[in-house]
Amino acid sequence: MGDKAESEVLMDTSWRVVGSTQDRLRAWWCSCCTLKKRLPILGWLPRYSLGWLQMDLIAGMTVGLTAVPQVLAYAEVAGLPVQYGLYSAFMGCFIYCIFGTSKDVTLGPTAIMSLLCASYIDGDPVYAVLLTFLSGVIQLSMAILQLGFLLDFISFPVIKGFTCAAAITIGFGQVKNILGLQHIPQQFFLQVYYTFHNICQTRVGDLVLGGVSLVLLVLLKLMKEDLRPNEADAPICVRVSRGIVWFFGTARNALVVIAASCVAYACDVSGYEVFTVTGKTSQGLPPFSAPPFTETTWNGTVIPFDEITQDLGSGLVVIPLIGLLESIAIAKAFGSQNDYRIDANQELFAIGLTNIMGSFVSAYPVTGSFGRTAVNSQTGVCTPAGGVVTGVIVLLSLAYLMPLFYYIPKAALAAVIICAVAPMVDCSVIIKLWRVKKLDLLPFLVTFLLSFWEVQYGIVGGIAVSGFMLLYNIARPKLKVSDDDVLVVALDNGLNFPASEYISNVLYTEALLVSPPRSAILDCHHVNNIDYTVVNEIRDLLRQFDLRGVCLVFSGLSIAVLEVLLAAELPGLRHMDSVDAALQSLSGNKAFN
Amino acid sequence: MGDKAESEVLMDTSWRVVGSTQDRLRAWWCSCCTLKKRLPILGWLPRYSLGWLQMDLIAGMTVGLTAVPQVLAYAEVAGLPVQYGLYSAFMGCFIYCIFGTSKDVTLGPTAIMSLLCASYIDGDPVYAVLLTFLSGVIQLSMAILQLGFLLDFISFPVIKGFTCAAAITIGFGQVKNILGLQHIPQQFFLQVYYTFHNICQTRVGDLVLGGVSLVLLVLLKLMKEDLRPNEADAPICVRVSRGIVWFFGTARNALVVIAASCVAYACDVSGYEVFTVTGKTSQGLPPFSAPPFTETTWNGTVIPFDEITQDLGSGLVVIPLIGLLESIAIAKAFGSQNDYRIDANQELFAIGLTNIMGSFVSAYPVTGSFGRTAVNSQTGVCTPAGGVVTGVIVLLSLAYLMPLFYYIPKAALAAVIICAVAPMVDCSVIIKLWRVKKLDLLPFLVTFLLSFWEVQYGIVGGIAVSGFMLLYNIARPKLKVSDDDVLVVALDNGLNFPASEYISNVLYTEALLVSPPRSAILDCHHVNNIDYTVVNEIRDLLRQFDLRGVCLVFSGLSIAVLEVLLAAELPGLRHMDSVDAALQSLSGNKAFN
Repeated sequence: MGDKAESEVLMDTSWRVVGSTQDRLRAWWCSCCTLKKRLPILGWLPRYSLGWLQMDLIAGMTVGLTAVPQVLAYAEVAGLPVQYGLYSAFMGCFIYCIFGTSKDVTLGPTAIMSLLCASYIDGDPVYAVLLTFLSGVIQLSMAILQLGFLLDFISFPVIKGFTCAAAITIGFGQVKNILGLQHIPQQFFLQVYYTFHNICQTRVGDLVLGGVSLVLLVLLKLMKEDLRPNEADAPICVRVSRGIVWFFGTARNALVVIAASCVAYACDVSGYEVFTVTGKTSQGLPPFSAPPFTETTWNGTVIPFDEITQDLGSGLVVIPLIGLLESIAIAKAFGSQNDYRIDANQELFAIGLTNIMGSFVSAYPVTGSFGRTAVNSQTGVCTPAGGVVTGVIVLLSLAYLMPLFYYIPKAALAAVIICAVAPMVDCSVIIKLWRVKKLDLLPFLVTFLLSFWEVQYGIVGGIAVSGFMLLYNIARPKLKVSDDDVLVVALDNGLNFPASEYISNVLYTEALLVSPPRSAILDCHHVNNIDYTVVNEIRDLLRQFDLRGVCLVFSGLSIAVLEVLLAAELPGLRHMDSVDAALQSLSGNKAFN
Repeated sequence: MGDKAESEVLMDTSWRVVGSTQDRLRAWWCSCCTLKKRLPILGWLPRYSLGWLQMDLIAGMTVGLTAVPQVLAYAEVAGLPVQYGLYSAFMGCFIYCIFGTSKDVTLGPTAIMSLLCASYIDGDPVYAVLLTFLSGVIQLSMAILQLGFLLDFISFPVIKGFTCAAAITIGFGQVKNILGLQHIPQQFFLQVYYTFHNICQTRVGDLVLGGVSLVLLVLLKLMKEDLRPNEADAPICVRVSRGIVWFFGTARNALVVIAASCVAYACDVSGYEVFTVTGKTSQGLPPFSAPPFTETTWNGTVIPFDEITQDLGSGLVVIPLIGLLESIAIAKAFGSQNDYRIDANQELFAIGLTNIMGSFVSAYPVTGSFGRTAVNSQTGVCTPAGGVVTGVIVLLSLAYLMPLFYYIPKAALAAVIICAVAPMVDCSVIIKLWRVKKLDLLPFLVTFLLSFWEVQYGIVGGIAVSGFMLLYNIARPKLKVSDDDVLVVALDNGLNFPASEYISNVLYTEALLVSPPRSAILDCHHVNNIDYTVVNEIRDLLRQFDLRGVCLVFSGLSIAVLEVLLAAELPGLRHMDSVDAALQSLSGNKAFN
């Protein structure tokens, strides 16, 4: 009955097909006309209110307090001097305010991007800044060419496998700082080996400070999570104490880092050197200048532009793509939670522009940060204007606080990073995948395991495996075969060239190689598409059936497929509306014979 | 009615699913047991008869007479001394006799493989022989790993585009030999430019001889094609003259080359040097020795194995794959014509073994030759034993005729090649593609045009384009949408992760962004597969619909898909058998509210 209803509905002219070329062109043209889509700020600025301003101020400051210690630590992960974290953290706040489509997303250095950059720039700021510029150019070009759809080919298991593995790599990478170990290599397996090998060189001061920082961060986080919202009639002392807990919980990163720095400073002035500290950093705002296109080494040799790009190599594909992926994934997650939709190509545009402009202020590549976006959202940000406040806080830190950063202990920054990446290790996804779709564990595991080798290999391997799984489904469609006087083969899927040889083989083996040969019906009810390779194979099959005096009848062909088959003028082509009709026509034939 | 029949049929337990893993394992196991499948000679040798022997003898000799001049010419295309053509031409005949599954296929040097080799070996026999060995190892490994299915991803338009372009490249590459020009570069565009640029240096002797050879070859071919079969009651003189025409037509390559060589010899002994001749060749059978794994250059430097393989580079992928493709395509074409099926993995095994053994007798990579296979088939070969005769003729030529090859004019060989590749340029395919499936012109044209740049880029580009077209269909399925009180979206295809974002966007835009929001039905009648990424997106959609107080109902879910959705425990999941039932349930809902 349902099928009948469907076929009736399909005849109805009120149906229309979406996704046609005209549709796309129209959409593109409209988007050209609509300035609002390209400048989302025009959508919310005219409606901006004092209430929003208040919320945005609070959220912006809160994110700022989280951002400053985090980005210092991430610069460490990227293998750059800590001030580069701050250099990279403010441009995105201003640009995203104008061009971003999500109110929550905060652009800036992230743990994963820092890890990826580390493997390409080899601690060289010139490479980092040039990589930022080139990534920005690539992302902007992709936005203009509307290539955001490429992200559709990265499936959920691949993203999960990648983030889990990256979080473990980043988190473990900080253990050496908690232990105060020196000269540990970057590669994950070597890192694990040498961390345990050198564990007897642990510095007690770092270990104690790191451990205390970790415990404090976890406790403050748990306190904040347990906090109930204020009721309207709660007494003032309850509200104030809840406010204090909320503040301590939200600004925990800043508080822990400040406290640890104070301890380190106190030890330093007393003449004890018990902690590994950040050390000397350059002061003040970064200069605004074009990114360097060549590098002069200490001995005067000039490395030309093309050699640097060659060294960056696959980074020029991986960094822009992962940057985009991370940002869009975050924007989508919070859009779904807070009930708005984002525009992937516009996000791409915003990130691209941020990276290009960022390269003028010595930034390394940035993307959306999950942790800070979550803080932003939870604090109740109303518009992307909150980012401006964050940006101003970062700039103020750069201008006035840099001398104090000398005393930040590395162990405290390591604790901040470990707490930031720990929630990304989500083991429950394995159980979910196992329960819902076991096969999807394959791309997950491939991505997860390969990521430990080199984090970018993981994502490439995962995409390859899931692509292969898609193509395998096309190349080897499931066939339902009924064995009677007449062979009936029902296709569950499209009929595309990779499947032509396989299906032809099945028909040949099951209908013609048996004795005596029998007629066959190919039920194409679910086939919506056919190509010339398949038509060619069908021509051949029809000839083979004809040679043996039996028939190959098609049933349930859609109009589009039938048109292609008729245009090919296949000799002996027979088609019926249904398997039933085909069976009747074949038995009629036999009666005739 | 047809659909009703189908759903009834699907309930019927007499249906079985082919292509399951068990199926495959069983097939593999059986193939392990069945020696016959691995040694096809066991299938026909016990039934071998005198009648077959007679036909095989005639066919083998005919192919031998075609092969000797052709392979000398192809060695020239590969940039190797002419004797390497003969070195490569006999091993395949013997091995294919034992391991081949097609009675018609003749392995040996071909025009396309020679062209491909030329771009990798740079005229160096050591590289050529090592490439043969490594290609053989790769092909044999592919056969053992049953990777023959990879060929399914090369579509008909790509094959056609590739062969057309290769034929033009090879054919035009011989124009310089017809004109007697020297020092023309290999690359197609440069070759065209310099051939016309240097046309005033044409040697009249070569031009005349080449032209006459061409005309003779075409005339003899036309004569043979016009030949009617002998009637049983035809007078003896008619039969004899037809036999003579048939012989001249079939052995035309050998006759023309012999005649041209006689003319060249006559001129030479009279002291005139009017033709460019093949010149000195090494004599006798090649030594039987392991392929060289290093090369010592004239100045004593040793090029190690890994450097040679690095130089061969992508050739180690392209040569084995194209070799396989060419051979399988030919075997399939003649199998279809002569009504037998071939086994791709077994063919792969035979070619791989031929190349490995060939490398012991200084062969360059071989594959199935279209021209000689056609001669073999037309002459009425009965079993692969015909190849043994061909192989013996090649060996005899090597042993006794090499001194005579000195006088073969290059222009005559060029004429042989041009006539061999001319039928491969098939313009009618463009008209067919245009009429049947215009979109398939895209991979054809991409392959065709890129092949002129570098012939291997063409096939890679074509595969990429046709792969992209497949994935595009998956990522952007056509949706039929009916606009009523309730939105009905019908999927025409599977529901895989690349499409999840797109479909979710359509539902969101068309059902939730309108005012007031409306319920939607997603008709999954044609959906047979679903993955975790899609399930995740559906979970999100259901929440969005719920937030706005409307429903998202699924209809026509297959059992497999429903199981996945139920396992995911999606809150608010509703499914109905058909669009009709879903519509009714939604209107019932509304009446309730």
